[in-house]
Amino acid sequence: MDYQSIIEEVYQEVQQENQRGKVANYIPELAHVNPDQFGIALVDLQGNVFAVGDSQIPFSIQSISKVHTLTMVFPKFDPQLWSRVNVEPSGNPFNSIAQLEYEKGIPRNPFINAGALVIADALCSKYDHPTEQILEFINEIAGKNSVSINSAVKNSEKNHGERNTALAYFLKSYKNFDNPVDQVLEVYFSHCAMEMTCEDLARSFSFLANDGYSIFGERKILSESHARRINALMLTCGFYDEAGEFAYRVGLPGKSGVGGGVAAVMPHKFSIAVWCPELNEKGNSVKAIRALELLTDKLSFSLF
Amino acid sequence: MDYQSIIEEVYQEVQQENQRGKVANYIPELAHVNPDQFGIALVDLQGNVFAVGDSQIPFSIQSISKVHTLTMVFPKFDPQLWSRVNVEPSGNPFNSIAQLEYEKGIPRNPFINAGALVIADALCSKYDHPTEQILEFINEIAGKNSVSINSAVKNSEKNHGERNTALAYFLKSYKNFDNPVDQVLEVYFSHCAMEMTCEDLARSFSFLANDGYSIFGERKILSESHARRINALMLTCGFYDEAGEFAYRVGLPGKSGVGGGVAAVMPHKFSIAVWCPELNEKGNSVKAIRALELLTDKLSFSLF
Amino acid sequence: MDYQSIIEEVYQEVQQENQRGKVANYIPELAHVNPDQFGIALVDLQGNVFAVGDSQIPFSIQSISKVHTLTMVFPKFDPQLWSRVNVEPSGNPFNSIAQLEYEKGIPRNPFINAGALVIADALCSKYDHPTEQILEFINEIAGKNSVSINSAVKNSEKNHGERNTALAYFLKSYKNFDNPVDQVLEVYFSHCAMEMTCEDLARSFSFLANDGYSIFGERKILSESHARRINALMLTCGFYDEAGEFAYRVGLPGKSGVGGGVAAVMPHKFSIAVWCPELNEKGNSVKAIRALELLTDKLSFSLF
Amino acid sequence: MDYQSIIEEVYQEVQQENQRGKVANYIPELAHVNPDQFGIALVDLQGNVFAVGDSQIPFSIQSISKVHTLTMVFPKFDPQLWSRVNVEPSGNPFNSIAQLEYEKGIPRNPFINAGALVIADALCSKYDHPTEQILEFINEIAGKNSVSINSAVKNSEKNHGERNTALAYFLKSYKNFDNPVDQVLEVYFSHCAMEMTCEDLARSFSFLANDGYSIFGERKILSESHARRINALMLTCGFYDEAGEFAYRVGLPGKSGVGGGVAAVMPHKFSIAVWCPELNEKGNSVKAIRALELLTDKLSFSLF
Repeated sequence: MDYQSIIEEVYQEVQQENQRGKVANYIPELAHVNPDQFGIALVDLQGNVFAVGDSQIPFSIQSISKVHTLTMVFPKFDPQLWSRVNVEPSGNPFNSIAQLEYEKGIPRNPFINAGALVIADALCSKYDHPTEQILEFINEIAGKNSVSINSAVKNSEKNHGERNTALAYFLKSYKNFDNPVDQVLEVYFSHCAMEMTCEDLARSFSFLANDGYSIFGERKILSESHARRINALMLTCGFYDEAGEFAYRVGLPGKSGVGGGVAAVMPHKFSIAVWCPELNEKGNSVKAIRALELLTDKLSFSLF
Repeated sequence: MDYQSIIEEVYQEVQQENQRGKVANYIPELAHVNPDQFGIALVDLQGNVFAVGDSQIPFSIQSISKVHTLTMVFPKFDPQLWSRVNVEPSGNPFNSIAQLEYEKGIPRNPFINAGALVIADALCSKYDHPTEQILEFINEIAGKNSVSINSAVKNSEKNHGERNTALAYFLKSYKNFDNPVDQVLEVYFSHCAMEMTCEDLARSFSFLANDGYSIFGERKILSESHARRINALMLTCGFYDEAGEFAYRVGLPGKSGVGGGVAAVMPHKFSIAVWCPELNEKGNSVKAIRALELLTDKLSFSLF
Repeated sequence: MDYQSIIEEVYQEVQQENQRGKVANYIPELAHVNPDQFGIALVDLQGNVFAVGDSQIPFSIQSISKVHTLTMVFPKFDPQLWSRVNVEPSGNPFNSIAQLEYEKGIPRNPFINAGALVIADALCSKYDHPTEQILEFINEIAGKNSVSINSAVKNSEKNHGERNTALAYFLKSYKNFDNPVDQVLEVYFSHCAMEMTCEDLARSFSFLANDGYSIFGERKILSESHARRINALMLTCGFYDEAGEFAYRVGLPGKSGVGGGVAAVMPHKFSIAVWCPELNEKGNSVKAIRALELLTDKLSFSLF
Repeated sequence: MDYQSIIEEVYQEVQQENQRGKVANYIPELAHVNPDQFGIALVDLQGNVFAVGDSQIPFSIQSISKVHTLTMVFPKFDPQLWSRVNVEPSGNPFNSIAQLEYEKGIPRNPFINAGALVIADALCSKYDHPTEQILEFINEIAGKNSVSINSAVKNSEKNHGERNTALAYFLKSYKNFDNPVDQVLEVYFSHCAMEMTCEDLARSFSFLANDGYSIFGERKILSESHARRINALMLTCGFYDEAGEFAYRVGLPGKSGVGGGVAAVMPHKFSIAVWCPELNEKGNSVKAIRALELLTDKLSFSLF
């Protein structure tokens, strides 16, 4: 069976089951999203796109962008980066500060908020115009001028950003933060406020299914070894305290965002993005996870 | 035996034992203090002062000032203050943020850093010129123009203040902080940087031994009930995670600071301040605690 | 005003306010107690007893007995006992095991379950017939043959004792347990299942108000220093994670039990026992605490 | 390059690097193992065995046996098993009890001790002679009468088993334990004391590389879906608080034991067992992990 038929089948089944959750509501800009939107886009290694549903509507990618920023920082800092941030699952909510105290200012992994702040800080140390360069980078690997920052979302995150500000100062108190807090938070809130369509998001993840080579950017983005390691990190840490559940049910490396998106890869086969705004209690999209579970069942593809 | 003889005896014995610790070193201004200084001053309810050693040398009172700020805030906010800060011992280091997360932004008590920041925030809500008014208040109850702010210490604390800044933003993320973080931290760092002599510090605590009435200020500072409650709080929470040990060994309500000072009261008898810069591992002055232990043994006075 | 009038007044006011809670229900034997019972008995230093309400009805003293066992063990093991158990408030529920792990098998204090198991273990090391000798000891200091073990309660506790068994084995894994687990648990469940009336309980606490001398046993039970220290421990640790609240509101050293009893002392004045089965969320008797709060207000007696 | 050449190359490089660790010493029977032993055995899907070094010497497989017991229980209890034990990485040491308290008696995953005790309990509910049946099962899937229980190790574990006993009673207090503690511990200590050679261990894991079909047992052991899920669990949880590191560096599902063994699978390719007794600080074999890292580098095989 071809990818197009399968994702359509998956789409139908998920819509019929119609499991519901709750749209993220900590900022009004996310709370007002139409909860009934649902889209899937799959990109194979030849760059063919297979899509269904609301795959062309831009949505807030939120934490999925942490994969992009990690990719930009990884080759410039490896291996010394890993003395500043660990590679272990956290087993705690994404914005927990307690674990950071117990582990003396070294975040568990680059995908929880504290870890992503360290990555944003490292980015500020290496790039002169970090926010612009993140946009350029994603446009390059998506092969489109597609990504933009929603400034209403960015400003709203900033206005509700006390917890991330606390994390940043806490990191600084452990000397694990080099740049001014305000500057790094500006970058962090900007990349979390980026908007992309399912199609473009799937395209931007394609290099991770392809041993680090982007067919859209037409260049090696990461070494094969680095690409594999980002996949390993996504598998063990991509879904906060639901990472084990996702590995267990879906078995693909992936990353979720509170905008309701999930991007995932089947190494050597395809990358995929699924989006539906309603979240489960852990902050992951109910329908996106279900769609990926059905997909791997139907394809009999998983890492394992 | 009279108080003067007893504190001299205590002074001699402590000097002979000569237990040592480590001067606080997180800021250079505290690290450079001469560690050999040691003073005691006791003030009875008639205002007589009994003193020995370096009782006339000003030192950084640090967290002891949290008793003064709580006193200023308490009658203005009781009882609603206690929905913002609890009255339980923390069992954790004074600057821990983990417990604050587990307990959803309500600090365990007003003497750990997070709790004292809530008090400073409340102070900023009620007083127009909080720092000046704290100085005035302490001068009033000490009956002298004695207290001053060491601005080198204050600025140094500020420059090393990331952890307290993190605590403040964390409180704000739980809506337990009303004023701008910078403004409150300015007040907080200022009152922690106040300098007083043992004698003046003991005088400023006199009202707590006297059911709330200050013989130096010549007025009721707190109701009897409020004064008792501050004493209860000092007994259970005045020495961070060594509060039980201090109650067990000394049995007086008291408050310590990382400058090496301890102020304590024996209700209906006296107030006392002891100072020696070297601290034990919990951040409390080795000689000050030992002196108070010997004193209560000799006097057969303790709460119990 | 005399003690009898005051406790009657307190009794009336508490009954009128009629604050309610929930009877302990983890074993049927406690769950079936009539929740409307309420008694107070106060014993002064001459041995005069002042009583009101259900002061002659035996009730399950539960954790209050931990004061009696600590008293039996303290002089025999001091100070080496304090390397096995600490003297700090726990800030956690009484049966928590997490803290015991973080602190490597040293319980926070002798009144949480883990600490009381260490005390029971120490008791088994020094006494040949520990259960009988606990009964003898309490009868002696109460000046009556009054205390008995309710074997239905004891057996029921045993049958629901998995958590305490876990604590005991956990202590053993840290080499902080010398005797066979079963033997120590038998002693522990026995002393927790003792029944006493308010009057007898107050009599049994009299020595703690009297610098260690029991007028009923007609002998020095503890040195003055040891008696004071048990009082300090009760004040900082006697009410689990509500110890600060009790010190704040009542200001007396005391110990509660899930049977709804509270025993407390005002040093150099009196001992007192109050009982009403309904508990607040922390496991302390609602009416007993309220009664003691009113009492100290009316008497203007508290430690502070 | 063929498997035999590669594992020999890996073997040589690891021996040259000669990274050292510390042999497990909590029981004398493990402490006395010759630390210089090192063996590798790889089994492909046709049943060909490639081996080097001490691949024929039996060693204590310890926690690796938790994969075997989970396999026996999984099809009999799925999905209700997953209300008793979770599938998330723990981020804590394998024998931690604190997390079990915070999560109300539901272990994080079936490979930490608490989770494996739940599995042993479930096993006791379904099998009449659990220990014998575990041996039979492993012999069947290894295609040999090879596995035996070292009773000196078993008895020694039992005599040092207070912590596991505490975990079992703690689970019982949460009603997450159906059978008598002693009976389940007997089974648990027995399966942890099993001895196997690298070759036999690799053979016993072959079905996990083969979609659940054992070529040695000549039958489907698990459905494809169940086999995949055990692999997912091994990847996220197989190395305690070093699971992320192993996924990051090696990228294969695997399980370690404190005897120094590691068993792993490359789905649809091979299973492998590596053994060297010296452990790193997290309790995982230094040389075994290094060998697997080199192997996946050389083969360019990993999940990702």
